[in-house]
Amino acid sequence: MSKNVRVVVDAMGGDNAPGEIVKGALSALGTQKNLTLVFVGRQKPIEAELKKYTYDAGRVETVFAEEVIEMAESPVAAIKKKKDSSIVVGLRMIKNGEADAFVSAGSTGAVLAGGQLIVGRLKGVERPPLAPLIPTNKGVSLLIDCGANVDARASWLVQYAKMGSIYMKHVVGIKNPRVAIVNIGAEEEKGNALVKETIPLLKECTDIQFIGSIEARDIPNGAADVIVCEAFVGNVILKLYEGTCSMLLREVKKTLLGSLRTKIGAVLIKPALKKTLTSFDASQYGGAPMLGLKGLVVKTHGSSKAIEVEHSIIQCVNFSKQKINEKISRQLAAGQTAE
Amino acid sequence: MSKNVRVVVDAMGGDNAPGEIVKGALSALGTQKNLTLVFVGRQKPIEAELKKYTYDAGRVETVFAEEVIEMAESPVAAIKKKKDSSIVVGLRMIKNGEADAFVSAGSTGAVLAGGQLIVGRLKGVERPPLAPLIPTNKGVSLLIDCGANVDARASWLVQYAKMGSIYMKHVVGIKNPRVAIVNIGAEEEKGNALVKETIPLLKECTDIQFIGSIEARDIPNGAADVIVCEAFVGNVILKLYEGTCSMLLREVKKTLLGSLRTKIGAVLIKPALKKTLTSFDASQYGGAPMLGLKGLVVKTHGSSKAIEVEHSIIQCVNFSKQKINEKISRQLAAGQTAE
Repeated sequence: MSKNVRVVVDAMGGDNAPGEIVKGALSALGTQKNLTLVFVGRQKPIEAELKKYTYDAGRVETVFAEEVIEMAESPVAAIKKKKDSSIVVGLRMIKNGEADAFVSAGSTGAVLAGGQLIVGRLKGVERPPLAPLIPTNKGVSLLIDCGANVDARASWLVQYAKMGSIYMKHVVGIKNPRVAIVNIGAEEEKGNALVKETIPLLKECTDIQFIGSIEARDIPNGAADVIVCEAFVGNVILKLYEGTCSMLLREVKKTLLGSLRTKIGAVLIKPALKKTLTSFDASQYGGAPMLGLKGLVVKTHGSSKAIEVEHSIIQCVNFSKQKINEKISRQLAAGQTAE
Repeated sequence: MSKNVRVVVDAMGGDNAPGEIVKGALSALGTQKNLTLVFVGRQKPIEAELKKYTYDAGRVETVFAEEVIEMAESPVAAIKKKKDSSIVVGLRMIKNGEADAFVSAGSTGAVLAGGQLIVGRLKGVERPPLAPLIPTNKGVSLLIDCGANVDARASWLVQYAKMGSIYMKHVVGIKNPRVAIVNIGAEEEKGNALVKETIPLLKECTDIQFIGSIEARDIPNGAADVIVCEAFVGNVILKLYEGTCSMLLREVKKTLLGSLRTKIGAVLIKPALKKTLTSFDASQYGGAPMLGLKGLVVKTHGSSKAIEVEHSIIQCVNFSKQKINEKISRQLAAGQTAE
């Protein structure tokens, strides 16, 4: 049938590399029949990890790259200097059409810079945004852009809205995704200069369902499927949301273990509470795709465990199968107006 | 001894006016000996509410204003048109030196616009920010600016840092407040154009303790006492933080009431859990002061109950006693450099 989706996995990126990375990737391999994995990184640690598992060796390849880009390095400089790093070698493979997708838990800056500089943008895409799925009490929403392009222009945000809609429709399966722009009030006259300039442009788009402004307080309630914002604001939203959830859950846990009385209560509520809390665990939804590139680049949390890596790779398979990039190219070309 | 602090209370503002407003204000009157209240708003409802309580009538005055500015009205237009509204009449009293502070749960836009247009700025203040206290797992932090001046300039943010430091030191009692700027990474080269321009200016300030960038995920952990940001970002932080806390607590509650087993557990943990959750209830800390005006204007949540109104008024008393405006004027004048 159709050829396998080839996903390059950065075996060296993140706090738990290579152990959790290899483990998660091989889990995905077990459930995805049309998947081939290409581990990129240092030979010794990769081979040592692979030895621990039994897997379909015909669908696992390795490409060795002995340099590693550290979190503290300047992203652009590192990309240019460390030609034999797992990130650069992996992204080159996407650029050269040797693979469909690249997944990394490494330096966000380096992955983003490399995505733009090495892989390159799809024709018609002004800026490729980073677009994670975030959990809400109704399911998930796509937050786009959460850190790729600060000081954005209105036209970039309009493209984010379109690319985000395509992603939510075809990868996540939301029929007619509701698109909203992050704003500081629901009224028309509210907003900063960028938002005020963008709203009329979004209203003109006939290929998305634009529902207007969303206030940040409504994000956790799933009030929109695609949440459009400038990268600085998006990054603040993503990090504050994650930080608040984890702090509050820590506080609740601390309370439950505070006394004998609460400890007994905790035993009774633990299974139910765990289920609730797991649904707000971002790692359940895989990493953040960078949309609009000639290929797919997915950035997972630096703290990624196997489960997040696994879900990110499954996401890559869906993305490829659904031919998202063809859909993005077609839709952006159709919406092109003379400037 | 010293003359009473005169606080004008907008009896008509907010979802629970005038009932909760009058109740909360009279509670504050009971504990603050040097406080005089001036209720402003419609005569009939105010008098009807006041009749329900016993209080020191010598320290309660009323000023009647029959118009009400609605939430949906354009703020600036409403301020200019409705001269006999509780907000305009109340702010005029501050402008004219007839009272020290104005507290309102009414239209945020109208209160902010009125603060600037009617009360006016202290000499040397470029823009007056809105600066609420937000709960963290270590206490409270001041978020400045959370909605007054979008598309800010670097010099405004520097003044926010100074005004916020004074507030945290003298009203909240933090000895040497740690000031941080909201950013999308801890590294020096991170940020948007505004943040990159502001950081070197903050580093030069010798009258504050600037500790660098703060990522949004560290805000709930109390990583800084004064959190400086542009109004759009601040508004997103405030609303997302409130929205996430309330959504998660709702989900936890729902889980606790989900089955007989969890209900029994809930009985055991309820008192302890309630204590934990109350510490993240923003209303415990009163409303948001608008700093840098010739007088004090405090905006409380539209949904304010008596407790928030009470705490806001106590905040006004401390603000006045500590002569915060004199301190702001002095410090900004000292830090003035030729432009």
